[in-house]
Amino acid sequence: MSPFKFIMEESERRKGSRIVLALDVIDEHKNLLAKAMGILGDAYEHICALKINHHLVLPLGVFDGVKKILDKAHDLGLPSIMDCKANDIGHTNRVIAENYYKAGFDAIIANPFVGWEEGLQPIFEVAKKMSRGVILLTYMSHKAAWEGYGQMVYDAASGEASPQYLIFAKKALLWGADGVIAGATYPEKIREIYAVLRGIVPIYSPGIGMQGGDIEMALSAGAHYLIIGRSIIDAKDPAETAKRIKNSINKVLSERLGSRP
Amino acid sequence: MSPFKFIMEESERRKGSRIVLALDVIDEHKNLLAKAMGILGDAYEHICALKINHHLVLPLGVFDGVKKILDKAHDLGLPSIMDCKANDIGHTNRVIAENYYKAGFDAIIANPFVGWEEGLQPIFEVAKKMSRGVILLTYMSHKAAWEGYGQMVYDAASGEASPQYLIFAKKALLWGADGVIAGATYPEKIREIYAVLRGIVPIYSPGIGMQGGDIEMALSAGAHYLIIGRSIIDAKDPAETAKRIKNSINKVLSERLGSRP
Repeated sequence: MSPFKFIMEESERRKGSRIVLALDVIDEHKNLLAKAMGILGDAYEHICALKINHHLVLPLGVFDGVKKILDKAHDLGLPSIMDCKANDIGHTNRVIAENYYKAGFDAIIANPFVGWEEGLQPIFEVAKKMSRGVILLTYMSHKAAWEGYGQMVYDAASGEASPQYLIFAKKALLWGADGVIAGATYPEKIREIYAVLRGIVPIYSPGIGMQGGDIEMALSAGAHYLIIGRSIIDAKDPAETAKRIKNSINKVLSERLGSRP
Repeated sequence: MSPFKFIMEESERRKGSRIVLALDVIDEHKNLLAKAMGILGDAYEHICALKINHHLVLPLGVFDGVKKILDKAHDLGLPSIMDCKANDIGHTNRVIAENYYKAGFDAIIANPFVGWEEGLQPIFEVAKKMSRGVILLTYMSHKAAWEGYGQMVYDAASGEASPQYLIFAKKALLWGADGVIAGATYPEKIREIYAVLRGIVPIYSPGIGMQGGDIEMALSAGAHYLIIGRSIIDAKDPAETAKRIKNSINKVLSERLGSRP
């Protein structure tokens, strides 16, 4: 098993949680770091990993404020994922991966749309060298996801058309990705993606709560980790809310699904 | 004309150059800011705009080192473009756009693959409100560009298949983009993209020099601005090299193409 998949499974087991907290805090600059640190400190017992996006990276800096958050996450035993959705040429992707991993991220998210050669290949190379993870986008949670992720791609050789998200799922298997993203707002897509990945590559699913996704539908379709952001960070009591969501997930897993997926 | 297209045309006229300098400097952290500032100070007379990518943003921070570079670029009369290739959900794209524009960038680059609703729409809204620009990717310069940008997309309604890059070019027109990216390594794609955009949306073309693209072929296919990075920043004399490339471009424009494109 890859190092990142292993630390995620370990963390899930230790915490009894499949929640990846999306720490997408928005606030005035002077309050931002303290607020993010506070929510992490409140909710850490009920989550198995942390996901950071540009909400924190741009105002706080990767090697400045964000590094402090990553250090705290590691002290709390939490793996950290950078949601940079890397989609540049290989030369730049290498720089992106090296910087985020060096700052302490355990995995980064990338877009398979750029392809392999001089595209994502250098990210996978850096990840392997540094024992870190790569998670690929297969279907996003927003309304316009149909425009790109849902489009039908025509293969001149076979004469057949396939949905873009299944092409991406196959690349995730082929390239040895440590996870894929598939939005909880589209459980029917999660189901099809799971049928390709068969549990070999775990599905991380954002879009629960504020965006309309449903825990039970996402899990029963094949999502393994649920990425939760605004429902927890905008709650009056983030710890209590994270605990409640964790329990809802575990109830679904034990009552309805047994240990699957 | 949109504010960003206007300042680009003004800058091109004033500088007599169509070079957008990609300041993708790689060095030890302690030397990075000084080296980037030095190259900008050397080459500024021969370029019409500056493009910054994660090579500087991640190590230096947007509101720290990068802001110093942007302030210098503006003092030198140069518009600045952030090559973030934004491809997130709308909620996050809004944060990305607001931060980069607030730091002083005049335009950002985004990937039309994410679509409009809850996708790129918020970026265009923020750009309009702050009088800044949005440049969309249509075809990138790397080897694997065929995998995504070059794929054939099947439209069930019409029963026809179109290349992804022409779908993106049409979206650039429809959404009112201020420019598109099309790699100089694929002049035949630039020609097809130009046939859709007809000069209404200018083509920015990376990939000249190190990646194998040719100035004359890119310009005659319809590229307007040429994005040059490593050829200038890795040169022994960046100013002299930038001047030489500027003159080569202007020679092609005057001798072979008249004032077109």
